[in-house]
Amino acid sequence: MAVDVGALRVAPGERAGLDGRPTDEHLGLADKEEGGAAHAELLDELRELHERLWAEAERSVLLVLQGMDTAGKDGTIRRALSGLNPQGCAVTAFKVPNNIELAHDYLWRVHAACPSRGRLGVFNRSHYEDVVATRVLGTVDERTWRRRYGHVRDFEQMLTDEGTTLVKVFLHISRDEQRARLQARLDDPTKRWKFQPEDLETRRRWDDVRAAYEDAISETSTDAAPWWVVPADHKWVRDVAVGALLLQTFRRLDPQFPPSDPRLDGVDIE
Amino acid sequence: MAVDVGALRVAPGERAGLDGRPTDEHLGLADKEEGGAAHAELLDELRELHERLWAEAERSVLLVLQGMDTAGKDGTIRRALSGLNPQGCAVTAFKVPNNIELAHDYLWRVHAACPSRGRLGVFNRSHYEDVVATRVLGTVDERTWRRRYGHVRDFEQMLTDEGTTLVKVFLHISRDEQRARLQARLDDPTKRWKFQPEDLETRRRWDDVRAAYEDAISETSTDAAPWWVVPADHKWVRDVAVGALLLQTFRRLDPQFPPSDPRLDGVDIE
Repeated sequence: MAVDVGALRVAPGERAGLDGRPTDEHLGLADKEEGGAAHAELLDELRELHERLWAEAERSVLLVLQGMDTAGKDGTIRRALSGLNPQGCAVTAFKVPNNIELAHDYLWRVHAACPSRGRLGVFNRSHYEDVVATRVLGTVDERTWRRRYGHVRDFEQMLTDEGTTLVKVFLHISRDEQRARLQARLDDPTKRWKFQPEDLETRRRWDDVRAAYEDAISETSTDAAPWWVVPADHKWVRDVAVGALLLQTFRRLDPQFPPSDPRLDGVDIE
Repeated sequence: MAVDVGALRVAPGERAGLDGRPTDEHLGLADKEEGGAAHAELLDELRELHERLWAEAERSVLLVLQGMDTAGKDGTIRRALSGLNPQGCAVTAFKVPNNIELAHDYLWRVHAACPSRGRLGVFNRSHYEDVVATRVLGTVDERTWRRRYGHVRDFEQMLTDEGTTLVKVFLHISRDEQRARLQARLDDPTKRWKFQPEDLETRRRWDDVRAAYEDAISETSTDAAPWWVVPADHKWVRDVAVGALLLQTFRRLDPQFPPSDPRLDGVDIE
């Protein structure tokens, strides 16, 4: 694999250091064409390994996507999973919690959506909203959101122990890139439906949201479930990077077709 | 659209007539190459309309896939949905009911899996197992499975009235083609995991299963939710036919991007 993603990892126990991480780098790829070719090649291998994960039906993978507004969570799902068997995927988008969800602890709806064995689950937003958005909006107090870091570490450790490998990705864009993307949503009639009036408010809170992510990522990057900060100003870099992170995970899992039943050897169907 | 699927419809009130319907026809397409090109073209349009359905978020589509064993339900899902945004798809495979499911009526788990507004749902098997498999295996008596035809018609009418368009597809293969596919599963080590010992038993009951489908399709092809019998001996014909059925459905729905909020006109992002 020609795509170098090693440096994107947030080492457990260290600060995320978002301000020092570039949003526009190319990860050793010359240009968009080379990136596209690398992405197509790794998708072929990923597709094969995903089929094996499904056949094996023993373990699962959970891709968690977070990022500032317009960082490209939806686009990543559309493109990084392109051509994977939809039957082996389970995508969940977490919106503002509804009444039934709010009547439970914040991990309740998240746990219910975790992928079953054999599946690649994708979370478009996640329980990290409960330590980021809630903090910025002031809907929970500091004692509560600080205490949640521990819950999240424990919850993810349990998932890992029981057979789910987490790939936690922060899509990292610059303030300027967000401005350009929000403006594009306003100006393009086929994109304006994605624009929410609240987006303007969120834009104003850029610094607060970034600070909350800096803390949340630093506090929850663990050996079991580390964070990866993916430069996302260029969509093609983002797509190939997320593909490479999934591929290295699937390679490490190395799922196998189940052993075949020897009683079936030599059977002829009538 | 060059693919002629009109004749695949089972007219409400008439018999399905499975014995008289070919399993190996080409639907007016010359060969696999022409079929692949037609499929690629209609997928492009389908992808665009699927994106609009998601943006509109008012209505949903439900593709129900049934067929004799090996008819190609999994393969259809992999190929007919190829490249659609996975976030706007919800695939559910119904297996033998578990204890919790059996503790409810047979439509309970099916209803829970119906797609939310804006989504394309796909059922790999469905409530039709509850009038076919149960009948063949003798797990419910005749009075029960006969009564269910009415429930199913009523349930699907309600779904339709409330905004879900059903596309019910019977993947139609010949007895010989099933034999060849089962044998291939046995002989190919990367496919043998799909082979269940029960498949041999199901193979022996070919005539009973076919008769049960003949009745179920005849009884439940309605104006609101008609059945389509897709020739499925050739995988490429099956894929392009299912794609064409979805496309004609999406074209009829003609989903639209939501109206944009005029208060957003001329807004500049800082």
